[in-house]
Amino acid sequence: MRPIVALLTDFGSQDHYVGAVKGAVLAACREAAVVDLTHELPPYDVMAAAFSLSAARGAFPAGTTFLAVVDPGVGSARRALALEACGQRFVGPDNGIFTLVLAEQPSARVHEITNEGLFRARVSATFHARDIFGPVAGRLAGGMDLDEVGPPLSDPVRLPLERPRARGPAEWEGAVVHVDRFGNLITSFNAEDVDGALATVNGDPTELVVAVEGMVLPLVRTYSDVCEGEACALSGSSGRLEVSVNRGSAARQLGVARGAPVRLRKASTSGG
Amino acid sequence: MRPIVALLTDFGSQDHYVGAVKGAVLAACREAAVVDLTHELPPYDVMAAAFSLSAARGAFPAGTTFLAVVDPGVGSARRALALEACGQRFVGPDNGIFTLVLAEQPSARVHEITNEGLFRARVSATFHARDIFGPVAGRLAGGMDLDEVGPPLSDPVRLPLERPRARGPAEWEGAVVHVDRFGNLITSFNAEDVDGALATVNGDPTELVVAVEGMVLPLVRTYSDVCEGEACALSGSSGRLEVSVNRGSAARQLGVARGAPVRLRKASTSGG
Amino acid sequence: MRPIVALLTDFGSQDHYVGAVKGAVLAACREAAVVDLTHELPPYDVMAAAFSLSAARGAFPAGTTFLAVVDPGVGSARRALALEACGQRFVGPDNGIFTLVLAEQPSARVHEITNEGLFRARVSATFHARDIFGPVAGRLAGGMDLDEVGPPLSDPVRLPLERPRARGPAEWEGAVVHVDRFGNLITSFNAEDVDGALATVNGDPTELVVAVEGMVLPLVRTYSDVCEGEACALSGSSGRLEVSVNRGSAARQLGVARGAPVRLRKASTSGG
Repeated sequence: MRPIVALLTDFGSQDHYVGAVKGAVLAACREAAVVDLTHELPPYDVMAAAFSLSAARGAFPAGTTFLAVVDPGVGSARRALALEACGQRFVGPDNGIFTLVLAEQPSARVHEITNEGLFRARVSATFHARDIFGPVAGRLAGGMDLDEVGPPLSDPVRLPLERPRARGPAEWEGAVVHVDRFGNLITSFNAEDVDGALATVNGDPTELVVAVEGMVLPLVRTYSDVCEGEACALSGSSGRLEVSVNRGSAARQLGVARGAPVRLRKASTSGG
Repeated sequence: MRPIVALLTDFGSQDHYVGAVKGAVLAACREAAVVDLTHELPPYDVMAAAFSLSAARGAFPAGTTFLAVVDPGVGSARRALALEACGQRFVGPDNGIFTLVLAEQPSARVHEITNEGLFRARVSATFHARDIFGPVAGRLAGGMDLDEVGPPLSDPVRLPLERPRARGPAEWEGAVVHVDRFGNLITSFNAEDVDGALATVNGDPTELVVAVEGMVLPLVRTYSDVCEGEACALSGSSGRLEVSVNRGSAARQLGVARGAPVRLRKASTSGG
Repeated sequence: MRPIVALLTDFGSQDHYVGAVKGAVLAACREAAVVDLTHELPPYDVMAAAFSLSAARGAFPAGTTFLAVVDPGVGSARRALALEACGQRFVGPDNGIFTLVLAEQPSARVHEITNEGLFRARVSATFHARDIFGPVAGRLAGGMDLDEVGPPLSDPVRLPLERPRARGPAEWEGAVVHVDRFGNLITSFNAEDVDGALATVNGDPTELVVAVEGMVLPLVRTYSDVCEGEACALSGSSGRLEVSVNRGSAARQLGVARGAPVRLRKASTSGG
């Protein structure tokens, strides 16, 4: 089976950095399909990387190796990790970038990368993506066993996860965790949270509403269930609760940014 | 022959959406070369996608499958299409995104995508690129017959095409349909329109001029036929009439945006 | 061995241009891994392309073909080049884009591309990346001998290189040659320049400082050798002297742009 290596970084696209990482991967695994998830993560934003990785990995087949590098601590004592879960591998710094993968896959195997024989001959202090992570990802993609990278590790860094909190029998408060290119507001309510709320109203979404910035929005199935230019809430493509405007930008129209509180509650409950 | 899948969307590059689509394509056709045309189309701009697809497809060999998704109506009743023309395949929503391909290839075979057996196990209401179009494109790239996607369809959506109009025996008015990264103004005059105008002056381009925003510009062969910083008109790389500034930006220098009128006329004709 | 074609242009990502070039490469070499270095070089900035190409190529294995196109003179009399050095090939316009490759690899073989049999059937005057360079790069990647492109050429265009100058026995002045996405300031001091300066202080980096815009910065090994938000200088991933702020932007924090003077000197020397 052809190896796949999927890249996720905050390196942007105007420099040569992503290209150099691809070169390193191909030097280690010439047959790999090297594809980009995104390189436009906000610089140094480890949690944004964790979110994107979690949202994208399910679309990739088993045998994919993910190279995820947002790495403000490069060159310091922070460790380097390789993970294996559900037939996929993950390579990157031990700074919390795998927080969501580890939460979703508690039985993931985690190893520390210490085998210098896999690294580039001369390792830069500031570009481990090219000199360590790229070569290791290429070798793993080519079939190398996870044990080869170094010893198992039991305490990978996990960042605190923003989880919605109950604020009453039929009201929960979460937050906007990501604003996408279309201005959709992706929230901390995941599929299980939404299902849990639905269970309190016998599964009838019309009994729930979403409140954000004083607006109360209906919970619908897709954008076109409301008129053009109108706001709504729905279960987005990664299962999370999202706030959207049909053919418009919820972020701009509602004036909402990452971190803003979002409430999911029974339609009959008063308040904003 | 190795399958090629070329992607064209308005998904931007900061989110995980394009990556997820690539995962879906590779899950359906692991051997495919997956390449990006662009993902920076203006959000929801179906006609811009139609233009880019038309301009790029001729450079790709037979056997390429194009996945073109600008899809404001995702999850609504809009249909899904797969086309075949000149040995290439096209997959996307039925919203006019294939308007130019259909105009250029009137004998294209058009099928509606209805075969749910090809879809992802669970189809999101808001991400058909990952859950429907990606898997179908992957299967088609892998050699699946077009008939497998669903029944033939005779009335695909076609958007109105802005065509230049004659304004006299030797004057035609068109419009700017695209402004590229260099500030070149690509117009609605296609290769046939320019050839038709040239025929009225015995094929001598020096007998024609292009008027835009009160400026009258010479029709030349390439940018460097005028001095640095000077504006000109020429037949661009996709055959269309373009307005350019040598080593500069025509859009900025002439203050012209998409939609602006452009006239092609005999050099001897008066007026701006 | 699988062919690799790495692309470097100023075409940006919102148009179809890069996609068309990929189509042309794949049409000539269907098995190639086509990867992007960057397409966000400043329009017409040949020297920026030369810098990026130099910085990225070392990460790619032998057998890689680089397609480097920043080409303001497209369609004029400027020549087209193909180079070979260290088992890698390079294709692009003869405008100085290979200045650094040629400086680093004086024994590179250089040929002019004149063999029209390799070109697209109809060559546009404004898109040689698609019609000439892409097909030639694809053929070279597929194993074609360099001689096939045309005759050897002895006088490729070389742009003047900004080299640091000695300003005293222990002080050198260079300049910022690139500002990257993180706001790191990459300078004209290359690895040899830094080694030369280190040799004057018995290899002890703490004896050297870097002065930029009136700030005097320590020479360290990696970002985290200074506190968060503090500026420093270090040998960057391409061997060049860089000025950085730990988890911040040196460009923004120090108010420094490309072209700014940078001095490397003994710590004991006075002055800014």
